[in-house]
Parts: sequence; C-alpha cells; structure tokens
Amino acid sequence: MNSKDQHISQEEIQQMDSRKRGVFMNSLAGFRTVILVGTVSSEGINNLAIFNSLIHFGADPALWGLVCRPNAQERDTVRNISANGKYTLNIIHVSERNKAHQTSAKYGRLVSEFDVCGFDTEFQNGCIAPFVKSAIVKMEMEAVMTIPIPLNGTSILIGKPVNIHLPDGLVGQDGFADLAGAGVLGCQGLDAYLSATVIERFPYAQP
Amino acid sequence: MNSKDQHISQEEIQQMDSRKRGVFMNSLAGFRTVILVGTVSSEGINNLAIFNSLIHFGADPALWGLVCRPNAQERDTVRNISANGKYTLNIIHVSERNKAHQTSAKYGRLVSEFDVCGFDTEFQNGCIAPFVKSAIVKMEMEAVMTIPIPLNGTSILIGKPVNIHLPDGLVGQDGFADLAGAGVLGCQGLDAYLSATVIERFPYAQP
Repeated sequence: MNSKDQHISQEEIQQMDSRKRGVFMNSLAGFRTVILVGTVSSEGINNLAIFNSLIHFGADPALWGLVCRPNAQERDTVRNISANGKYTLNIIHVSERNKAHQTSAKYGRLVSEFDVCGFDTEFQNGCIAPFVKSAIVKMEMEAVMTIPIPLNGTSILIGKPVNIHLPDGLVGQDGFADLAGAGVLGCQGLDAYLSATVIERFPYAQP
Repeated sequence: MNSKDQHISQEEIQQMDSRKRGVFMNSLAGFRTVILVGTVSSEGINNLAIFNSLIHFGADPALWGLVCRPNAQERDTVRNISANGKYTLNIIHVSERNKAHQTSAKYGRLVSEFDVCGFDTEFQNGCIAPFVKSAIVKMEMEAVMTIPIPLNGTSILIGKPVNIHLPDGLVGQDGFADLAGAGVLGCQGLDAYLSATVIERFPYAQP
C-alpha cells in the first residue's frame, strides 16, 4: 500500500465510540438514493420514514428490498406494513433535503411525519398508504415477504411495485429512468445529502 | 397526480421486454457506489466482479451485504467465497469506469478479470483474496453467512470487514469517509456511471 495510506483493523473499528463507528461504517457503504417510505397505521395515522437502502433483487418478477433496523422510526413502518401490506416509495428533489432528514427524528407513534416535517400527502388508485405529493417518483408497493437477519435484529422487507408514477419523459426508450437529470436527492451515510451526475453509459460488456 | 405524469402499472412492467424491464427496474433502484469484489478460486485464479449492491446491515457488529444474482460472473464470486471465506471490496476512481464496466462481461472461469480488464492485483496482510491495487478504498472481508432469497434464486452474502485501507485524511474526525471528495465511481442501474457531490450534512435530527 502507499505510505500515505491509513490502515484500520477490525479491532480499531470495534474500539471506535459507537457514534463514530456508525458514521464510519454507514459512510463507507457509499452513495444511495433517498427513499421516503409512506405507510398508514391501523389507527389511520400516516407515517413517513427515510430509508437509504433500496435493494434491487430482480426485475422478473420485479422485487425491491428495504433493510429495516430495530429502531423506533423503522418499527412504525414495519408495524404498519405488517398490518396492511401496503407502502409507498417516494424519490424526491434535492431541494427537499432538510425536510427529508427531519423525518429521521424520533417522533411518537401518534405523530405524522408528513405534518411535522412539512410534506403533503396524496392518495391514488385506492392505495391506503400515502404518497409524498411533491415526490418526483412515486411507487405503490405491496409487501411480499420479510426476511429476518438473525445477526443483529434487522430484517429485509421485500415488496413488488404495483403502480409507478413518474414525470413524462423521465424514462427513456430503453427503460432507463434519468434520476440524476431530474435532480433527485441522494445521500451517503446517515447525514450527508448529495446530487449525482451521470458521466457515461456503456453498452452491454462483451468479453 | 400532475397531468404530465406517466403511470406504469404492474401489468405494464410485466409486459416490457426483459431487457427494458431490467434497465427500468435497476435504474429506479437509484444511485450506488461501484464495488469491485476480488476473490481467488481453489485453482488460484483471481476473480474480479462488479457489484452495485453493498448493503449496510449494521455497525456493531460491522456487517455489510452483497446481493448475488444467479448468473455466471457472480457465481464465480460466490463459489470462491464459499471455498475460502475471503474476499475484498474495492472502491475505485471515476477514471476507471471503462475497466470496471468491462468486468461485467461473461469471461470463463479460468480467465482472471484483473488481467483482461487491466487491473493490477495487490496482496496484503496474508489475505489470499486479491485487492485492486489502484483502488481508493480497499477492504478485506470475511464471510459471515449467506441468506438465500427463495423468491428468485438470489442470495445475500453477509460479511465483516477485517482490514480497511484508505488514503490518509479521507476519514474525518467524526468517522465520515469523504468518498465524493475523493472522486469515487458511482453507478445507477447496469450501465450508467456517475460522480456525486455532497451538498450538505445535517446534525442528528431532533423532534
């Protein structure tokens, strides 16, 4: 390695204080698109939670996953989806980063993050879960299965899109959704928000 | 919804031709950091595969996951890791995007993508899996468990970092690794490569 390199061992990671280790590990996991997950509780309270972990599991059938951590915000989301199987994924504009980050605060079960963080709800096609009205891409999802991760109490919620709403022209002839061109909000780790610029697309690689 | 919105139903997703559906679904999953996974086979052949799915499962213990698809490239990676439990995660500079994309081509088992795509190997601390010499961040990983996803034949390989090498100064006092500042390569979908710019970091959100 270069003499200017820093080397961090397993023991040093373990010895970091927990806040620093969380920032370090989360930031190394890299760039993401911010996803706001909309749900509704059995009592009719709308919930909105920020996730940075949309996992592509496959296109046929179309399946996406969310890693759910055992904390209060994500518990509300998981509880609501367990109760009615419905949720929305909302991709927003960079200009909404302050409000999006605010949804990560620990609000009580009876508080709607839509109200306190300043997002308007929208309802479509009989989907009981709320969309974020101002979102650029709005996806109605149906839960398919939950996979528990025994190592640390997290779980992966896998679902399928049943309706996708996006601006006319966002999706090209080949199916590519130009999220960067639309100015969607990205993130890295727990507190950094970013924009992305597509540099280049390549044809299918051949040996 | 806005009258300029496009609405795509579950049926329309299913009716897309498979290439277009793959591009569509993968691109909607959003921005990622490109991860090159280095492994070595029982026969001593070094393998390098591109992944865009590093999943943060937790910081204590530190755990990251990779979604492995049932295709030839990722099968080599999975086979090698099953055999010896070791792999490397390499985060590279945007200028290496052509070579990185080329690792996605279907090379035979006896071909090393390091050689044919033009990446030099590097070995450190007795780790048998090869690092990408030119990578900005190099992580030695140990497999912890594999979780099969019965829905479509994918699996999630979960591992822990045992050694992390990165440039001096990349990690701030608070633990944040400034990947965007270092010009690391991001991607969206199967063929778009991007750079990212951090706009703002926020303090921990309070209600």
